[in-house]
Amino acid sequence: MAIQIAVIGAGVMGADHARIIAEDVPGASLALVCDASPERAKAVADAYGGAETSTDPFAVITRDDIDAVIVASPDETHAPLCLAAIEASKPVLCEKPLSQSSQQCLDVIEAEVASGRQWVQVGFMRRYDPSYAAMKATLDSGELGQPLMMHNFHRNVESPGPCFTGAMAITNSAPHEFDAARFVLEADYAAITAFQPARPGDLVAPVFMVLETVTGQIVNVEINNNAAYGYDVRGELVGEKGSVSLSGPIHARTNLALKASEDYARDWRPRFAEAYRLQNKAFVHFARTGEFPAISANAWDGYCATAVAEAGVTALKSGGRTVISLADKPALYARQET
Amino acid sequence: MAIQIAVIGAGVMGADHARIIAEDVPGASLALVCDASPERAKAVADAYGGAETSTDPFAVITRDDIDAVIVASPDETHAPLCLAAIEASKPVLCEKPLSQSSQQCLDVIEAEVASGRQWVQVGFMRRYDPSYAAMKATLDSGELGQPLMMHNFHRNVESPGPCFTGAMAITNSAPHEFDAARFVLEADYAAITAFQPARPGDLVAPVFMVLETVTGQIVNVEINNNAAYGYDVRGELVGEKGSVSLSGPIHARTNLALKASEDYARDWRPRFAEAYRLQNKAFVHFARTGEFPAISANAWDGYCATAVAEAGVTALKSGGRTVISLADKPALYARQET
Amino acid sequence: MAIQIAVIGAGVMGADHARIIAEDVPGASLALVCDASPERAKAVADAYGGAETSTDPFAVITRDDIDAVIVASPDETHAPLCLAAIEASKPVLCEKPLSQSSQQCLDVIEAEVASGRQWVQVGFMRRYDPSYAAMKATLDSGELGQPLMMHNFHRNVESPGPCFTGAMAITNSAPHEFDAARFVLEADYAAITAFQPARPGDLVAPVFMVLETVTGQIVNVEINNNAAYGYDVRGELVGEKGSVSLSGPIHARTNLALKASEDYARDWRPRFAEAYRLQNKAFVHFARTGEFPAISANAWDGYCATAVAEAGVTALKSGGRTVISLADKPALYARQET
Amino acid sequence: MAIQIAVIGAGVMGADHARIIAEDVPGASLALVCDASPERAKAVADAYGGAETSTDPFAVITRDDIDAVIVASPDETHAPLCLAAIEASKPVLCEKPLSQSSQQCLDVIEAEVASGRQWVQVGFMRRYDPSYAAMKATLDSGELGQPLMMHNFHRNVESPGPCFTGAMAITNSAPHEFDAARFVLEADYAAITAFQPARPGDLVAPVFMVLETVTGQIVNVEINNNAAYGYDVRGELVGEKGSVSLSGPIHARTNLALKASEDYARDWRPRFAEAYRLQNKAFVHFARTGEFPAISANAWDGYCATAVAEAGVTALKSGGRTVISLADKPALYARQET
Repeated sequence: MAIQIAVIGAGVMGADHARIIAEDVPGASLALVCDASPERAKAVADAYGGAETSTDPFAVITRDDIDAVIVASPDETHAPLCLAAIEASKPVLCEKPLSQSSQQCLDVIEAEVASGRQWVQVGFMRRYDPSYAAMKATLDSGELGQPLMMHNFHRNVESPGPCFTGAMAITNSAPHEFDAARFVLEADYAAITAFQPARPGDLVAPVFMVLETVTGQIVNVEINNNAAYGYDVRGELVGEKGSVSLSGPIHARTNLALKASEDYARDWRPRFAEAYRLQNKAFVHFARTGEFPAISANAWDGYCATAVAEAGVTALKSGGRTVISLADKPALYARQET
Repeated sequence: MAIQIAVIGAGVMGADHARIIAEDVPGASLALVCDASPERAKAVADAYGGAETSTDPFAVITRDDIDAVIVASPDETHAPLCLAAIEASKPVLCEKPLSQSSQQCLDVIEAEVASGRQWVQVGFMRRYDPSYAAMKATLDSGELGQPLMMHNFHRNVESPGPCFTGAMAITNSAPHEFDAARFVLEADYAAITAFQPARPGDLVAPVFMVLETVTGQIVNVEINNNAAYGYDVRGELVGEKGSVSLSGPIHARTNLALKASEDYARDWRPRFAEAYRLQNKAFVHFARTGEFPAISANAWDGYCATAVAEAGVTALKSGGRTVISLADKPALYARQET
Repeated sequence: MAIQIAVIGAGVMGADHARIIAEDVPGASLALVCDASPERAKAVADAYGGAETSTDPFAVITRDDIDAVIVASPDETHAPLCLAAIEASKPVLCEKPLSQSSQQCLDVIEAEVASGRQWVQVGFMRRYDPSYAAMKATLDSGELGQPLMMHNFHRNVESPGPCFTGAMAITNSAPHEFDAARFVLEADYAAITAFQPARPGDLVAPVFMVLETVTGQIVNVEINNNAAYGYDVRGELVGEKGSVSLSGPIHARTNLALKASEDYARDWRPRFAEAYRLQNKAFVHFARTGEFPAISANAWDGYCATAVAEAGVTALKSGGRTVISLADKPALYARQET
Repeated sequence: MAIQIAVIGAGVMGADHARIIAEDVPGASLALVCDASPERAKAVADAYGGAETSTDPFAVITRDDIDAVIVASPDETHAPLCLAAIEASKPVLCEKPLSQSSQQCLDVIEAEVASGRQWVQVGFMRRYDPSYAAMKATLDSGELGQPLMMHNFHRNVESPGPCFTGAMAITNSAPHEFDAARFVLEADYAAITAFQPARPGDLVAPVFMVLETVTGQIVNVEINNNAAYGYDVRGELVGEKGSVSLSGPIHARTNLALKASEDYARDWRPRFAEAYRLQNKAFVHFARTGEFPAISANAWDGYCATAVAEAGVTALKSGGRTVISLADKPALYARQET
C-alpha cells in the first residue's frame, strides 16, 4: 500500500516535492497539499494528480489517512511542524533549516529523544547528489590520503529579496555548505571566521567564511547570492595526495558566435534534481520501514548546521574568529560505523 | 491501480528494467520475471521485491493479470513476442532491435496496423537522454541554422563475445546511432557507405559508416566495440552557424599522480540511467493511457533502424555506397507536427 | 651573424612571418619584404623594424645579401619561387601548398634531387604544434596500441571568398589535415572517398572525406570553411587501447549570463601561434646549419599532400572511392629511423 | 647590436633564463653565465652556445661588455646584486623576491630613486602569462562589473626541502599570488589573515590566507607546496555580474583505462613557459630602450609583495588578522593611466 504523503507549503520547493512524490518516486501517493493560500495549494494539487488540499498544517499532520509529511513551508514553521509530526508519530522530511534557531533545533531533538526514535529527516539533499557521493567515495577510497581542506562555492543568480543581508546569506544559504562539508569530512566545526567584500549598489555582497574542524581541516565557503551569471555550486576536497572536485550535470556544449559554452540553470532544481529524487525516495523508504536512511541528515545534523550559522553571523559582525561549541550529542544520533 | 508489468528476459538488460520498474517508476508493479532459466528469473525477481517467475513468455503475455510487458530476451525472440503482445492487446516495450530482419519488423508493423492502434514501443532510450534532448532543443531553437552533419561515436569496452564481427557491430550496436541521428535530424537515410580499418589480433576492428539523409545531411557513425578504455558515446551536430555536442554525466574530476581525470563507466548503464528511467516512465504512462509517447520509437522506427543496418552490412561487404530504400510508411505512424 | 631573411608576399601570412622573424626568433633578421604591391610591402616592413622592400621576388632570391626566403605569396607562385631558390642555393620556407599541381611539386623535387640536397621546407606548421606533438608522443609511447583511426575536423569562420567551392576546400584547406594525419600515423594514403551535405544558400557546404592508409588506418576529415562559429581544429587518434585528442590553447573560462564559455579565435593565428614560432625557429636553424629539421615537411611531403588533394577532388566529383598512387620517393627524402 | 646579457645563478631558474635568452628571444646574446660553482656555470654556458663563465657576480655586473643582467641566484643575494646593477647603471631582471626583507627592498628603491630612473624589473612573470592577461582583459572590458573577490590556488608537487615551513610557503611561494592578484585588481592590500590545517607526517601543511584590499575586495590564497599530484596554479576573479577563471595550457586529452585525463607538469616551467619568454623579451626591449615595460613588476611591486609576505608570516604566527602598512610610494613608480 502506497505511503500517503502530505506536502506542507506550496511554494517553489513544495511544488517540486509534490511533483517528485507524484511522478518520480514509487510507493507513495501525493495525498494532500497544504498551504496558507488555498489557491496555491489547489494549483499544486491539481498539477500533480488532484490531491486534497488544506490550509491547516497541524490538522493535516494528525489525520489518520496521512502517513508522512514533507515540510516546505516558511522557515519559522519548520520546528513547530516537526514537533507536531513527532507528537503524531509521523515521519517528516523537513526542508532546511530545521530552524534558524539552534535552541529550537534542540527542542526538536529533545522531543525526538523523548519519543524513543527518529522521525525527522532534514532536507540536506546534497548528501544524495552524485557529485558529492563521488567526492566522498574518492576520499573514502584512501587515494587522496587524509583530507586537509575543502573549498566550497555557492552562487545564486539573485538573492530572494532586496532586503537580503550577509547574515541571511549565512543562515539561509550557507547551511547547505556547512552540512555538505561536514558530511564529506565526517568532522564537526571548531571555529569560524567571516569576511565580506565591499559591493557597490544595493545588492548584498558575497560572504566568505573560513571554518576549522575539530580534526584540523580548513573549510572555506563562499556564499554569493547575487552572482548574477547562474546557479553554480562548486566544491573541491584537497587531500595529502590529490584532490577531487564536484562536477554538476552538463548535457551539451554549444559552439556559436566565437564561443564554446555550457549552460547554467537559473536555480537549484536542475543542478540537484537527482539529489532531490533520491532523497525523497529514501524518505518514502524511511516512512515505510522506520529505518532512518544511512546518509540522510537527521535532527542533530540540522542542529549542527544552525549552530554553525549562528556562530557565522557572530563572526561576520565581530570581524573575528568565533569558536563554535555544540550541545552534547544524544545517543539516538550515533551512527553505525561503516 | 498500478500497472502490472512482466519483464521477459532476466539478463543484464532485463534485470535493469526490473529494477527500474520496481524502484524508480511510480504507477507500476514488477509483477513477473520470465526467463528460460528459472534460477535467473528468480534471482532478479527476488532482488526487486519478490515478483512471480515463469519460463514461458507466451503464456505470460496472455495472462489477465499482466497489463504490459517489457521484452529484454535474446534478439531473435523480439518480433515473435511483440506479435504475441499485439495479439493479446498488451502494450510492449521491446528492447532494440525490434528484429534483426527488416521483413520481420514489417510483419510486426502489419499486425499492429491490422489491430488499429500502436502497442509496440521500441527501446531506443537515447531519445530520452538529456544530452540528446539538449542537442535537439538547440537545433529546434534555430540558433544553429539548418543541420548539415552529425558525427557519432559509439565505444564499448569490449565486444560481447570473441566471434563478434563488423557486420554484428552494424546490426547490434549501430541501430542506436541510426535511430538517434534520425530522431535528432527528423530525416530518413538515403544511402550508406562503410569502412573498416585493419586491426591486429583477434578483436573486431571498428566500423566507420557515412550515411546520407534524404534531405542532404551527412551522418557518420563510428562503432568501436573493443575501444577498451571505457563506454563512451559522443555526438556532434553541425549546423550552418554552429554546432552542439553531447555531454555525458560526469560527477567528479580527480587530481592524482600528474593527471586530472574523469571516470568512464564500463557499460551503458551509468551513461544512460536517466534515459532508461524516463523511457520506462513514459512506457508506464503509455500502458495506462494508451497514448503513445510523443518521442518514443515505435515499430516503424524500429523497422527503419533495421533496414539501415541491413544496408550497412551490404555496404561493408561490397565496399561501396549502398542505397537504402524503405517500405511505404503506414498512416498509423504519422506523427503530429509539433 | 644573423641569417638575412626575405619574406615574399605581404598578405596576412607574410605579415605574420615577418613579425615572427623580426620579433620572436633569434639568429635572424627580417632583411626584406617583397610584394607585388609596394605599399603593402612597405607597410609590413615598417611595422617590423624597417626592412628593405621589393616587388621582384626572383631578383630578391638571387641577392647575395639574402640568405634565405620565406614564400607566402599566392599559391601559383610557390613552385616557381621554390625552383628559383633551389637554383640560387637558398633555403626556402614555402607556405603550403608547395603547388596545387602534383606535377609541379614533382618538378621541385626533381630540381632539389638534382641539386644534391634539400632546400625546401614546406609550411605544414602543425607538425610543430604542441597538441599534435602530444598526440604523436602518446602514440609513440605505445599506450594506445596500434593506431586504428584518426578523426580530423577543420573549421573556419568563413571561406576566403564567395566563389569558394568544395574542390577548393580540398585543395586549399585539407592539405593541412592530410599532412598532419600522415605525420602522426607515419603512413601514406591508399584511397579517398568524399561526401558533401546539401547546404541552403550561397555558402559552400562542408566536405567530409574518408581516407584509407596503406597500413590500414581509416582517416576522416571534415573541412568546413563556413563553420561560422570560430576557427576550430580538432583531432582524435583512436588506437587499440584508447584514444588521444588535441586540445588547443584556452586561456580563460568566463561565467556570464547563464553560460560558462571559452573563446574561439577568428582565425588560425592564435590557435597555431606556437607552431609557427617553432617552425620558423627550425627554419632559421636549417638556414644556418643546412641540416633539414627532423620533423619539418619537405618537398616530398608537400607533393604527397597535393597528390592526395587531387585524388580528393576526383573523389568528390565522381562520388566514389578514388585510389591514390604516388610517384617513387627519391632517396633524398628518406628519413632516419628514430 | 645584440644586448649582451649575463645570467647570474645557474640553478634551475638560471638555466631556464639562459636557454630563453640564447634560443627564444631575438636581439640579445647570452654573453656570460655566473655561478658560485664554476662547473655549474660552465654546464649551462655550454648547453646554450658556449658563453663565458664567472664565479664573481659583482665583477660581472661592472664589466663594460655586459649590457644587462638576469639575477637568478639565491634569494639573499638578490638585493645586493640589484644594488650593484643600479650602481653600474645596468638593467637587471631580478627573480622574485626582490628580497625577503621589505627593508632591503626599500634600500633598492632608495638607490633606484637616487639614480633618477628605473633599472630593476622583478621576475613576477605571471603578469605576462596569457591566462592572467585574459582574466585582466575580461575585467577591464567591464563585462564582470566591479571585482569583488579573487580566489587563488598554488600547488607544487613537493616543497623544495624537508625543512620547509608554513612561513616559508608565505615568503617563497605566495609572493607570486600576492603580486598577480594585486596586478589584476590594481589594488593594494590592507590586511591579511592566515590559516593552516593539520597535516599528519613531516610534510608542511598548506597555508590558506585571506587578504583584504584597500578597495574592499577579498583575495584568498592557498599555498600548497606538497600537493603531490602536480604543479597547478588556478585563479578565479569574481565580479558583480560574472567570473573568469585561468586556464593553463593543456595540449591533449587521453582516454585510457576507464579514465579521460589531462597531464599536469611536475613544475612551473611548462605552465609558465610563454610567460617567461614574453617577460624576458620585454626585458631585452627594456635593456635596449630604457623604457620600463608597462606591465612588468618594478622594485616597488617587489617591495609590496615582500611587505605582504611579512605581514602574512605575522598573521600565521598570531592566528589573527594583521594590518598591512606600506611605505610611501616614490613618484618614480607612478604608472601612466591606461
